[in-house]
Amino acid sequence: MSVVNVAVIGVGLVGKEFLNQLATVASSQTNRSIRLVYVSNSKNSVYNANDGIPLDRWEQTLAQEQARKVSPSDLPSRLKADLNVSTSARPVTIVVDNTSSEQIASLYPSFIQNGVDVITPNKKAYSSNLSLYNDIVTASSTPGGGRYLNESTVGAGLPIISTLKDLVATGDEVVKIEGVLSGTLSYIFNEYSTPSGQGPSFSSIVSQAREKGYTEPHPGDDLNGADVARKLTILSRLIPSLRNHLPEGYQSVSITSLVPASLASVSSGDEFVKALPSFDAEFEQLREDAKREGKVLRYVGVIDVKEGVVKAALDKYPANHAFATSLQGSDNIIAFHTKRYGSRPLIVQGAGAGASVTAMGVMSDLLKLL
Amino acid sequence: MSVVNVAVIGVGLVGKEFLNQLATVASSQTNRSIRLVYVSNSKNSVYNANDGIPLDRWEQTLAQEQARKVSPSDLPSRLKADLNVSTSARPVTIVVDNTSSEQIASLYPSFIQNGVDVITPNKKAYSSNLSLYNDIVTASSTPGGGRYLNESTVGAGLPIISTLKDLVATGDEVVKIEGVLSGTLSYIFNEYSTPSGQGPSFSSIVSQAREKGYTEPHPGDDLNGADVARKLTILSRLIPSLRNHLPEGYQSVSITSLVPASLASVSSGDEFVKALPSFDAEFEQLREDAKREGKVLRYVGVIDVKEGVVKAALDKYPANHAFATSLQGSDNIIAFHTKRYGSRPLIVQGAGAGASVTAMGVMSDLLKLL
Repeated sequence: MSVVNVAVIGVGLVGKEFLNQLATVASSQTNRSIRLVYVSNSKNSVYNANDGIPLDRWEQTLAQEQARKVSPSDLPSRLKADLNVSTSARPVTIVVDNTSSEQIASLYPSFIQNGVDVITPNKKAYSSNLSLYNDIVTASSTPGGGRYLNESTVGAGLPIISTLKDLVATGDEVVKIEGVLSGTLSYIFNEYSTPSGQGPSFSSIVSQAREKGYTEPHPGDDLNGADVARKLTILSRLIPSLRNHLPEGYQSVSITSLVPASLASVSSGDEFVKALPSFDAEFEQLREDAKREGKVLRYVGVIDVKEGVVKAALDKYPANHAFATSLQGSDNIIAFHTKRYGSRPLIVQGAGAGASVTAMGVMSDLLKLL
Repeated sequence: MSVVNVAVIGVGLVGKEFLNQLATVASSQTNRSIRLVYVSNSKNSVYNANDGIPLDRWEQTLAQEQARKVSPSDLPSRLKADLNVSTSARPVTIVVDNTSSEQIASLYPSFIQNGVDVITPNKKAYSSNLSLYNDIVTASSTPGGGRYLNESTVGAGLPIISTLKDLVATGDEVVKIEGVLSGTLSYIFNEYSTPSGQGPSFSSIVSQAREKGYTEPHPGDDLNGADVARKLTILSRLIPSLRNHLPEGYQSVSITSLVPASLASVSSGDEFVKALPSFDAEFEQLREDAKREGKVLRYVGVIDVKEGVVKAALDKYPANHAFATSLQGSDNIIAFHTKRYGSRPLIVQGAGAGASVTAMGVMSDLLKLL
């Protein structure tokens, strides 16, 4: 029976759910044994490469005083030393990074160089500047290098990255990708801008979304468009002709921020929400302009391959467009316009955030590696 | 450099396009060599396990008199003998069946038992009676057995089967699957039944679809719902609790046939089309009934897991439902309602037929095996 070693960095909502799913998957494996060798949160860690950590008792084990401390940055060399990952008969060893840490992302090349596979919903590695991305690609294409999978960085469990990879790998040409890629901004504009052109004020919807937990603690972190720009960067780097198009990562994307300029430096979420109503008139004007054209407002990400344009922007869509008619709640939607799919795109739609569907995307990557 | 042997049965529209894509993919491989060892059409075959058949000259090679004849039914034993597929250091050997033949499908277990992988857009194997399906599952779960992949049997290149497999494998519970799974019936009802409730007669749309090449030569082969029932059978068998639910395959599905009873025995497509107008009034009544309820008609496939119901039927959908608003042309659409995705389903939409997207589905399966 072959052994698969799994090391988990980060056990917040997604990490916990991932470990739940891992326990279920592990119990259903007949010809391999899944062994949890490492678990860490921001304060503590437990490492046991010999016997593994019980999947049903990792929380208690992590909480124990005697937990053997190995920081994530020491993990690449420890895994290499203890699991012989550089030999040809090595077991599969997979690191799952469930954090959103730039620092953890910077460790990926050293894992991959040592033959350890990396799976992550952390957007940082493929959305920051080119050097980290290039280091990962180089390491994983070197013989003996580990593999890198990040399905859940865009659309959580939705098959978005795998679909784009399939299109490219089978020789299709991507013409344009267009989508509503932020669950938060999907919710806000699905509520704010309907074909009727009427409804509650922009600030009231933002407040409501925040109360429901749909936004970051500071809603400006959603409204600034950075999350959408990061996802666009990740997708762009999977398109051969755009691979090096965004040297500074998401900061190279053309971004329309919805944070009013005078609120840009307000660091408190509470204060931000309190000040937002004074900008309702501006948003009302945009809603009315769209209505006058028979359109609705949607915050979209667009990758126009031919024009080389990558933008996160507030755009107007006809009331009968899929982004207007079939989008609900905080769903994501993405349309792949390609040569093969011709005039009607391939569309994927559904919940693009949430712990269980994000963990599912991570788990489906893991199953691909088995 | 590792070698991957590919044997191709059937070189019609899909098979030709697959071989085109294979040539492109083969030329981009850096650490493996893709070798075409077999090509056959219904009359002829060429087999060359030693040197392979040139990917850019397979048509000429197949047309040559001296082509070495190996029938598909002899292929399992030939591949085993010549490629040592039963040893542990065997090369990957993949058979791609691009036919729609029941007879070729019946050979899959013998390929898989010999360690040969099978990839196919042929719906027959997983949509006929349980025994063939069970034989394939048993063979591929036996140590040393080949793998079986059939992404393009439902929705061609759309990520439908892989998505369902991911949902199931990661522990999600499928509650209901609902979709427009026939490109032909999608086109016919998208044209016939719009929210306005008005438009050309049913028979005229069928004739038009036939002229455009959207239907089978005998449109009854689309209107009888069998194709939808086959796709539902394939999907049902990927859902653990329904695996054995359709003992006779697609014939166990509850099917609403749109072929008028008195035309059931008309074997000529021309005669069928000529006789269809006398039934326009019946279809008009259905269209008007739907319109009166603010709905449109769609021919859908439904798998209700809880109720154990699998049906191919003409149903009515509200004018603001995704099946009414966002479906165009001959697109397929499928909605996965699952426990994790809650009240809003995961949706995949796009062209579900055509040689290039079908071949793409086959090719993406092949890339999964590499």
